[in-house]
Amino acid sequence: MSISATDPGCSARVGLLTLTHGTVNTPAFMPVGTQGTIKGLLSDQVRATGAEMMLANTYHLALRPGDETVAKLGGLHSFMSWDRPILTDSGGFQVFSLADRCKMSEKGVVFSSHIDGRRFDLTPETAMSIQQNLGADVAMCLDHCPKLPADKKTIAEAVERTIRWARRCRDAHQRPDQALFAITQGASHKDLREQCAEELVAMDFPGYAVGGVSVGEDREHVHEALKVSTPKLPLNKPRYLMGVGRPEDLLIAIEHGIDMFDCVWPTRNGRNASCMTFEGTVRLRNAAHKLDPRPLEEGCPCIACRQYSRAFLRHMFMSGEMTGPILATIHNLTFLQRLMEQVRSAIMEGRYLAFSRELLAKWAP
Amino acid sequence: MSISATDPGCSARVGLLTLTHGTVNTPAFMPVGTQGTIKGLLSDQVRATGAEMMLANTYHLALRPGDETVAKLGGLHSFMSWDRPILTDSGGFQVFSLADRCKMSEKGVVFSSHIDGRRFDLTPETAMSIQQNLGADVAMCLDHCPKLPADKKTIAEAVERTIRWARRCRDAHQRPDQALFAITQGASHKDLREQCAEELVAMDFPGYAVGGVSVGEDREHVHEALKVSTPKLPLNKPRYLMGVGRPEDLLIAIEHGIDMFDCVWPTRNGRNASCMTFEGTVRLRNAAHKLDPRPLEEGCPCIACRQYSRAFLRHMFMSGEMTGPILATIHNLTFLQRLMEQVRSAIMEGRYLAFSRELLAKWAP
Repeated sequence: MSISATDPGCSARVGLLTLTHGTVNTPAFMPVGTQGTIKGLLSDQVRATGAEMMLANTYHLALRPGDETVAKLGGLHSFMSWDRPILTDSGGFQVFSLADRCKMSEKGVVFSSHIDGRRFDLTPETAMSIQQNLGADVAMCLDHCPKLPADKKTIAEAVERTIRWARRCRDAHQRPDQALFAITQGASHKDLREQCAEELVAMDFPGYAVGGVSVGEDREHVHEALKVSTPKLPLNKPRYLMGVGRPEDLLIAIEHGIDMFDCVWPTRNGRNASCMTFEGTVRLRNAAHKLDPRPLEEGCPCIACRQYSRAFLRHMFMSGEMTGPILATIHNLTFLQRLMEQVRSAIMEGRYLAFSRELLAKWAP
Repeated sequence: MSISATDPGCSARVGLLTLTHGTVNTPAFMPVGTQGTIKGLLSDQVRATGAEMMLANTYHLALRPGDETVAKLGGLHSFMSWDRPILTDSGGFQVFSLADRCKMSEKGVVFSSHIDGRRFDLTPETAMSIQQNLGADVAMCLDHCPKLPADKKTIAEAVERTIRWARRCRDAHQRPDQALFAITQGASHKDLREQCAEELVAMDFPGYAVGGVSVGEDREHVHEALKVSTPKLPLNKPRYLMGVGRPEDLLIAIEHGIDMFDCVWPTRNGRNASCMTFEGTVRLRNAAHKLDPRPLEEGCPCIACRQYSRAFLRHMFMSGEMTGPILATIHNLTFLQRLMEQVRSAIMEGRYLAFSRELLAKWAP
C-alpha cells in the first residue's frame, strides 16, 4: 500500500491499495454482498456507485452455495460478476451471531448451519481453505472476539488465542494472489491492544484489522478505542475497521488513521427508506415527500437522484415495491463513495479536521 | 397506424404505431408496471429489454398515490421516468377482481379501495378524468366484461352497456395528445362480437381492444374467440388483446391479426424463478443448475445471460435474494421482446405460420 498524503492535523491518510483485481483508493468503503450480491443490486449498479471493492461473507457462502461450489464455478469474482477487489471475512463473527449450537475450543468452533442444521468446523485452517476456495483478494484470519463487556482476564485470553490462531492461519494460507489480513483484539485496554498489535506485526501480515471496537451511540468510546488501537500498527499497511459504516463513525475512524470500512448500515437503512445525504437523513416514507418533485439529494449523480423524485421514491415504499429499496440502496452507497471522495480531497488538502467537524456538526441530532 | 407487411398465409401483420411519446413496432408486447414500476426494475433496465411501450394500471395509481398527485408531478411519464409510450387500462377489470364492495349500475361502479376502504366512483366519465390526469399515450374506455361462463342474454346486455359506456367515454375524453381505445365484448358469440365491433367502429376510435377473450390451456378456444373478434375491426387501426402474455398465446393471437399485448405473466413467472427461452421453460430452482456455468439462454443479450451463470441465478433464488427475481424478470421481458422481433421478421418474410408452428411444437408439453 502506498500512502500519498497524511493530514497534518491528525492521523488521517490517503493511500492506494494494490490487490490482485485492481487498486483501491483509501479511505475506502466496501459495500457488503453477504450472499454474493448487494441486496437488490446487479454488479453493474454497484460499480456505478463508485465502489472499488466489495465484501462477501464467508459464513453465508460456505453454507450456501458452498465454497467448493464457488471454486468449481471459477471463484467469487466470476460467480458474482464482480471483477474488482473483494474481501471475505473469516466467518467467525457470523458463527457466533447466527449459527446454532456453537462450541468453541482451542482447535476452533463447531457449529450447526442456521439453514439446514448441518455441522461445520470453523478452525483457523478451515477458515483459510474456505476463503481460498472463494478466492477473494483479501482473506481475514479467524480471531476470537469475546462478548463485551468482559473482564480483563477474558480479554487477555482472547488476545492470546487470536495471536495463536493468526499464526495457524498464516501457516495454512497458501494462495499468493490473496492477501491475508490479521485482526487485532484487546478491547479498550492499551496494554493488551499493544501486545496484540506487536505480536501480529512481528508476523508481518500485509494488512491489519481493528477488531472488537464497539461502535454505536457513544462517540467518545469510539475515539478511545481507536486511540489505543492504531498507533502500534505499521504506517505502510492498510488498517481496516470491521463492521463500521455510519457516516459519523467513519469520519472519526479516519481521523485515527483507518483506511478501510465495511458495513450493512447503508444498504439495510436504504431498504428501510432511510437515506443519507450531506444535509442529513431523509426518511422517504415521510408524508412531507408526497408531492415533492425534487430529487433525494440535489447534485447527487446516482440514478435515484437523476431520474426520480422524492414523491416517486415515497410512492415505491408506500406501495411495497422493491424498486424503493433498490433506489435507496443505490443512493446510500453512492453517498458513502462520494463522502470518501471528499474525505480524500480534504486530507490531500490538509483540511481534514475542519471538513469532518463541519459535517459532524451538521449531522448532530 | 401504418401497416408495413401482412403475412400471405394468415392475418398476421407488421406495423408502426405512432403515439405522442414515440413510435412502437407491432406486434408489440407491453410489460406491466402496475403501480408505476415493473416490479424490481428501473426504467433504464426496462428500456434495455427492448420494450417500446409500457402499461400502468389505472386502478392502482388512482388509489395510490392518486391520479391528481401524479398530474401535479407532471404526469405518469415524468413520475415513472419513462419517456416512451404508456397505455393505461380503464381500471374496470381490477375493480371487479381487487376492490371491496363493488356495486354496478348503468352509471358506473361504486367500490371501496382494498388499501384503506375509501369509496370511489368508477364511471365512464371518471375513468376518463383519471386517465387524463395520469396522461398516458393511450387510454382505454370503461367496458363491462361479464364473468364467464354466462348465458347469451347476459353477454348481450354487457355488449349494449359497453357500447353506451364507450360513447360516454368518447364524449368525456378531451386530451388530444391521448388516444382513446374502445374495447369489444361479446364472448365467443359471432353475432354479438360483430354487433359490438360495428357499433364501436362507427364511433371511429383510434384503436380497438379485444376484451373478454378467455385464454388459458385450451388453445382451440383462443383460436375460436379470436376468429370471431378480429374480422370486423378496421385494418388500419391497432388491435390490442388485453392481459395475454404466454408466448404460445401471443403466437396464436398474432396469427389472427393482433398487434398489441400486455401481461404480468413474464414478470410474475420471473419472480417465481420460471424463465422462458426459445428452447422452453427453465426453472431456476432446479437442482440441475447447481454447478451449471452456462447462461440461462445462450445468445440472449440481457444482463442476466451476459453476466451471470445458471448456478448464480439458482443461488440467488435459493438464498431469497431479490437479485434473483430482478434478473429473471429482465430475462423474461427481454425474451418476449426478442420473440416479437423474430415474429416481425417472419411476417415480413412471409413465413409466419411456419415460424410460429415450429416454436409451438418445440414448446408443446
